[in-house]
Formats: sequence, C-alpha cells, structure tokens
Amino acid sequence: MSQPAQKQDKKPVYKPRPISGYPEWLPEVRLVEQQWMDDIRNVFESYGFCNVETPSVEELDVLLAKGETDKEIYTLSRLQADPDEDKDARLGLHFDLTVPLARYVAQHFNNLVFPFKRYQIQRVWRGERPQKGRMREFYQADIDVINVDQLPLHFDAELPAIMYRILTGLNIPPIRMQINNRKILVGYLTALGVSDITTTTRVIDKLEKIGEDAVREQLQSEAGLDNTQIDKALELAKINSADASFADAVRALGVTSEMMDEGIAELSFVMEHLQHLPEGAVLADMSVVRGLDYYTGTVYETRFIDDPDYGSICSGGRYDDLAGSYINKKLPGIGISIGFTRLFDRMVDKDLLDTGRKCPSDVLVVLPHEDRRAEVLKTAEELRARGLKVEMFHAASKLKRQLSYAERKGIPYVWFPPFEDGNPHEVKNMEKGVQYNADPSTWLPERGE
Amino acid sequence: MSQPAQKQDKKPVYKPRPISGYPEWLPEVRLVEQQWMDDIRNVFESYGFCNVETPSVEELDVLLAKGETDKEIYTLSRLQADPDEDKDARLGLHFDLTVPLARYVAQHFNNLVFPFKRYQIQRVWRGERPQKGRMREFYQADIDVINVDQLPLHFDAELPAIMYRILTGLNIPPIRMQINNRKILVGYLTALGVSDITTTTRVIDKLEKIGEDAVREQLQSEAGLDNTQIDKALELAKINSADASFADAVRALGVTSEMMDEGIAELSFVMEHLQHLPEGAVLADMSVVRGLDYYTGTVYETRFIDDPDYGSICSGGRYDDLAGSYINKKLPGIGISIGFTRLFDRMVDKDLLDTGRKCPSDVLVVLPHEDRRAEVLKTAEELRARGLKVEMFHAASKLKRQLSYAERKGIPYVWFPPFEDGNPHEVKNMEKGVQYNADPSTWLPERGE
Repeated sequence: MSQPAQKQDKKPVYKPRPISGYPEWLPEVRLVEQQWMDDIRNVFESYGFCNVETPSVEELDVLLAKGETDKEIYTLSRLQADPDEDKDARLGLHFDLTVPLARYVAQHFNNLVFPFKRYQIQRVWRGERPQKGRMREFYQADIDVINVDQLPLHFDAELPAIMYRILTGLNIPPIRMQINNRKILVGYLTALGVSDITTTTRVIDKLEKIGEDAVREQLQSEAGLDNTQIDKALELAKINSADASFADAVRALGVTSEMMDEGIAELSFVMEHLQHLPEGAVLADMSVVRGLDYYTGTVYETRFIDDPDYGSICSGGRYDDLAGSYINKKLPGIGISIGFTRLFDRMVDKDLLDTGRKCPSDVLVVLPHEDRRAEVLKTAEELRARGLKVEMFHAASKLKRQLSYAERKGIPYVWFPPFEDGNPHEVKNMEKGVQYNADPSTWLPERGE
Repeated sequence: MSQPAQKQDKKPVYKPRPISGYPEWLPEVRLVEQQWMDDIRNVFESYGFCNVETPSVEELDVLLAKGETDKEIYTLSRLQADPDEDKDARLGLHFDLTVPLARYVAQHFNNLVFPFKRYQIQRVWRGERPQKGRMREFYQADIDVINVDQLPLHFDAELPAIMYRILTGLNIPPIRMQINNRKILVGYLTALGVSDITTTTRVIDKLEKIGEDAVREQLQSEAGLDNTQIDKALELAKINSADASFADAVRALGVTSEMMDEGIAELSFVMEHLQHLPEGAVLADMSVVRGLDYYTGTVYETRFIDDPDYGSICSGGRYDDLAGSYINKKLPGIGISIGFTRLFDRMVDKDLLDTGRKCPSDVLVVLPHEDRRAEVLKTAEELRARGLKVEMFHAASKLKRQLSYAERKGIPYVWFPPFEDGNPHEVKNMEKGVQYNADPSTWLPERGE
C-alpha cells in the first residue's frame, strides 16, 4: 500500500467468464436454492437423522478402494509444491458421498451409535467433459442408515417416505418413486438358468432407454440368453403395481426361487408400509434394476411423471457391505440420494423457480435526514429484535431513491420512522402501494406475504 | 453383482486415518457447528444481506490476478486426463472468499443491485504444511458491501455491529473488536517524512507479536526511520479509546495532515455510531494496521479479551478497488471475515462446546410389538406435523433396548403409544426420569429443554 486514496488508473487485465460445469447463481436464485436446502434438511431432521460433513478430499487409496475408476476423479496438487513433496499428496476430491460415508463409519466406528442414521448435503466433483445436465461440481443430498450385522426392513420403507415428502414439498412437477427388490430379479433369473446375471441385469436396466427390441437383441448377443429366457425376463420386467399386488403377478409367471420369495416378501413389506402416501406416489416396478453392482435388495428410482426421460432424480438402494474395504465388520446399509443440483438446475433451466426477492430483507427503514440516524438505527434494531429482517438505508438521500432501492431489491415493506419527534411511524406495503401508521414494537408483515 | 446375499469374506484393505489439515467432526460436534452457522446466517440476514455461493474453483488467472502467490494454491488435475487435455484445465481451489467475490461482482455486474450486500459462508483451501491452528480446508464466514464509485461510511459502523452481535451470541469467551483507520497512520507517517510506508506499517503491525524493542530495531534497519520518527510512530500506536476521544490524543501529538484528519473524522463517525454496543465491545486502536496491502480506510481486528495472543478471529477493512483486475469500474467495498473453522476448532480444542445430543431428535417413539407398527407410525407422523423431530424405533424389541438407544443418542423424550387400543399415550422425560400421560395432538417439550 502506498496511497490509501489511490486513483483508478489501471485497465482490467482479465474478463471473467463462467467455468463450464461449475454452476453459479445470482442472489435471487441462490435464495431459492437455500430455501430448498433448508426444506430438505428440515425433513431429514424431522425423522431424527444427524448431519455429517466430510472433507472435500479423501486419500486416493480410499477413492479407488472399490475399483471405481470411471468417476473421473480430480486430484489436488500444490501450485508451488516443493519438488520432493508431492509423494505424500495423494488426495482427490470426492465424487460421491457414499465412499466418504463408508470411510467415516469405519474410522469413527467406536464413537457412533447404531443404527447410524445420517444425512449429508455436500458438493461432489467429477472431472467429466461438460455437457448439458452433466456438471463437474454439484450438490448431492444423501440419506443413509447403517447398522451392524442386520438392518431392519423398517428403513426400506422409511427412506422413500422421507424422500417423497421432500420432493413433493419442493414445488417441482409431480414425481413418482419406483421401487424394486433385486432379489426378485436375481432369484428369478437364476431359477431360469441364466448364468451371466451381471450382464443380464445391466441390459434389462436399459429397457426404458433403448426399447424392447434392442434389449432382446443384447440379452441374446451379450448375455447369452435363449428366447424362452428372454421372453420370461421381459414378462417379469413389465410387472408393476401401486400396492403389494405385484406379488401375485410375479408368482403367476410360474418360476419358483427362495431368493425371489425373499425379495417378494421384502418388497411387499415396503409397499404395505407406504400405503399412507397419496395414490400414485410409489410404484412397485420390476423393471427397475439400478446399474450399480453393490445393491443387494430394495432399489429406488424417482422420475417426473410428465418427463420420465429426464431420468432418475432421486435413487438408491440397500447394500450388504458398506465398508468392508476399511473395517472387518459387516455393515449393511440403505441409502437414497437426491441429485440436488441436477434437479435444481433443471428448474432454473425450465424457468420454474419463483424468484421474487434479491435479498432476504422484509423491511427497508428509510433515513430521511442525517440527523435522524440514531432514531432510524433504533427503529431497525427494534424490528430486528422481533425477528424481522431489516435493512436501514445507508445514507440520507431523496426518498424516491430509497424507495427505488427497495423496489429493485424486491423488499416488500418500506418503513418511515418519524421525520420529527412526536410524529407516528408509517409503513408502506410496496406490492399493494398502501401506506399506514404502524408501531415498531407490534407491527408484523401482513399474512400471505 | 453375482449374489445379493453375499458373504463377508474379504479382509479390509485399508485402515482409514484422519487427513492432516482437513478437520472432520463427530455428529454431536457437527450439530453445534450447524447451530453456529445457522446463528451467523440469521444475523447476516437480519441485516438484509443476501447469500452468494461461488464454485470451489476459479481459473488460475483469477486467483493470481492480484499477484498473491503466497496463498499456497491447490490446482486440480483429472486422474485419467487425456494427454492433450490439461492445457485448458487451469483451475485452482479458492484460497479466500474475496477473490471470488471480486470476480462474481465483475461478471454479474449488470444483474446486481448496488450497494451489493452479500454474505458468503464457504470452505476455502490452502495447501500449507499442516500445523496447529493452520488448516488446509476450512470455513470462512464473510460479509462485504460493494458499491459503485462511493461507499457510504454507514457500512463501516454497521459491519462491526453485525459481527459483534454474532460473536457474542456464539457462547465463546469474551471478545473485543479493535478498529482503526489506515488514513490516520499513513497520513501521520507521511507528514513525518517517512518514505517507505509499506515496510513501516508492516513492521508496526508486529508490535504485539515481537514487542517494542524489536519493532524499533526493524523500523530503523528495514524501514529507514530515524529515532524521532520511530518515537513518534510508537507514540501514535499506543493511543486507543473506547469512544471517539482518541481523536484529541492523536491531534495532541502535533502532527498535521489532511489525510490523517480524514481518517480521524471517519473513525470518529464509526465509534460514535457504535456507542449503542455494550461498554468494552469496541476499541479505537491506533496499533491496528492489518498486513494486507489493499485496505485503504477502516480496518478491524477481533481478539479474545483473555487470550489476545491467539490472534484475530474476525478481521477486515475497507478497500477502494475490489475488482479493477476484471472490470473498468471503481468498486469500493468493505468486508469482515470470521475465521470460522479456526474459531470453532479452538472451542473444540479447549473443550468449550456444549455437545449433548448425537442427533437432532426431540422424541423417540417406541415400537412395543410388530402389530402396533401402523399405530406407532401414525403417532410419529402426528408429532412431526407439529414441528417436532421424531424417530420411530426401527424394530419391535425389548423396551430396555429401545430406551438405551434413546439414552445413547441423547434423545430427551421417549414416547409410549398405547400398547393396546383405548389406553393413553405416555411420554418419559429422560433427563428427569419422569413419565406421564400425554396427547400427541397437544404435547410439547417442557420449557428449558
């Protein structure tokens, strides 16, 4: 520093531009995003789930423990690293919140109470080539329950109920949750004599995307199924029901399998305990497979009813072995994740957000003359003490200018403290254009604001 | 996937350990951290500040625009990058929230309303060698006001009032904010004939840390001051006052300077408009310099009254030129930042946090028999609908086990729905050990819980 009041004489050196794949919102959009996150958090907590945050990074050994190398991991390096230093810097940004959860549970095992019910709302990073709907940095909102040895079926029904409540509270187009149990499909295929279960389920998972003909072709060419097996597999995949009646339809296919029966019983329990949700909220759907290998029971997907092709916005399932890579315990779990930014970005993109205000303020208190500053400050404090969000205008200037500021920021009320001692306070409802006397110790915004 | 019910037969491959410099909390500590963040956010918003989040990364051109290369920037690389790709991937994690703010304001200039009042609570990263109190990933909570051309002095007084309210609400040891104005020191030194202002202020900034003798020595050897200049400089640095009376003491030193007078007038305004704060809350303190070059007026530091050597936990100041590197506008601003994680970590370290609960639940509803599940679910939903945070026990089992779960999680109330139709509901206050009849449609936790 040489001159505190230096002149602005240098030219800009760099014109900032958006970074592809890294979304950023204007304040009025961020205000809605915060409201969404608050709503999600409130529902998670209303079911007693605790919050966890993990560091943005994990050791690469952790990120790669399950052999997943398709997640386009970002690694960190120091810009001015000592030449002999980088060997210890084996850190990468997490690409989901499940790997960090597994590491967290293993690391803090002795300090957690099980069943461990946690939610986690954090950014994750994937170094993908950016394209529409694919982001490099985005929020996920995850909820998981982990237990030791056995995990009660209760949670298989509670988690979708939680997510349904959240999603229908967010002012997004109508959604439906589709639920299946992988034991049904795997037991069924095994009883049919199918040997390559992994490939077969992977192909069936593409039914909606590539259509029946292509699936038939791939089931034959890639998974080695014969025509009878293909017919039977597709018959199963077409079964769905809004209640537990899918069970009869599955059994009517005439295939018997112990594992399949176990899956039917589990899914029936889940569907029965979701019957308090509105009609059409959930669907038992035999076509839902989920690509991820580690799911072993209940699986979930969630789609817009009028826009199913956008794909699942909230997915998950049950897994038998959360943290076997890190700890010698059997830790079964179940989890669902909202692709938060992917969903939010879709609403921004379709102009479906209600973005009125540019700031959280309820009230702007005007400053009529400089010599009323103490009075104005007192009024603002009085309103704040009663829980209102209050800006005090920053400099005495024309009222028109102060009102225009409130208008441009979307502040719904402008407060006029007495311009002279003894006069009453007044408040103006900016939307209605109505102004009236008000007492700062009792006034409240009108209902419905 | 081959077998949904696979056995746990593989051994752990990796024992997770903490990553140095990346703090992570147990759920009961995170619960308090969330409460802190909520409190901070609520105060920021009660003054009408809007929230902004920027991506975790900026282009390196942006991070390096001010020539700051001492911030140990982390850069990103893709683990499996195409060989010809890395040239475009010039991204680094942000090391503070001011550089992103400058870029944000320049980039979105036409869509913002000025004065632009924003808060930002995000993680920042610095690839420092980890040591006590130095973290590689930590939260900052920043508040800034940016305007075009001129920024009213109003904000110089409002910002410390906001921060004082926040810090005294956080249940931390008593703090005091020290405020100065760099125009006083710079004007004064210039009038004394000091030529190397930058070095001189940098040395004076170390007064508290290295003591008067060392400062004298360095002012001579490094800044080239003579004995008279050194005496005069130290005389100024010793002046402080809880109100605007510092002005008389400064003027009594007999040095005259227009810039100094400007600084005195500004700081007097700030102190006068902070007199509504409790006694001892703020101190006009001529020894406060702040090392950063870009401050040009008011500067702030905040220390624990009983532990000043821990250094400043909340600092900032006024700058003339926020975004001159990115836009051809004069954008003066003022900001203060809480070193959130550094402060929180200190409280964890000193065992000063009140960490009672391991989850947010107010109530655990017990499940006495499997055939009461629907009844229990209904009770839990009824309590939730009234705003309570409610867990339903996940499986019918011995009451002792269910009560023990509540105890270990720190859930304050256990709810007993009727074990048979027609019987009353009961609730148990776990801390007091008292159990009584209660109606789920009207019951509330007792006051003071």
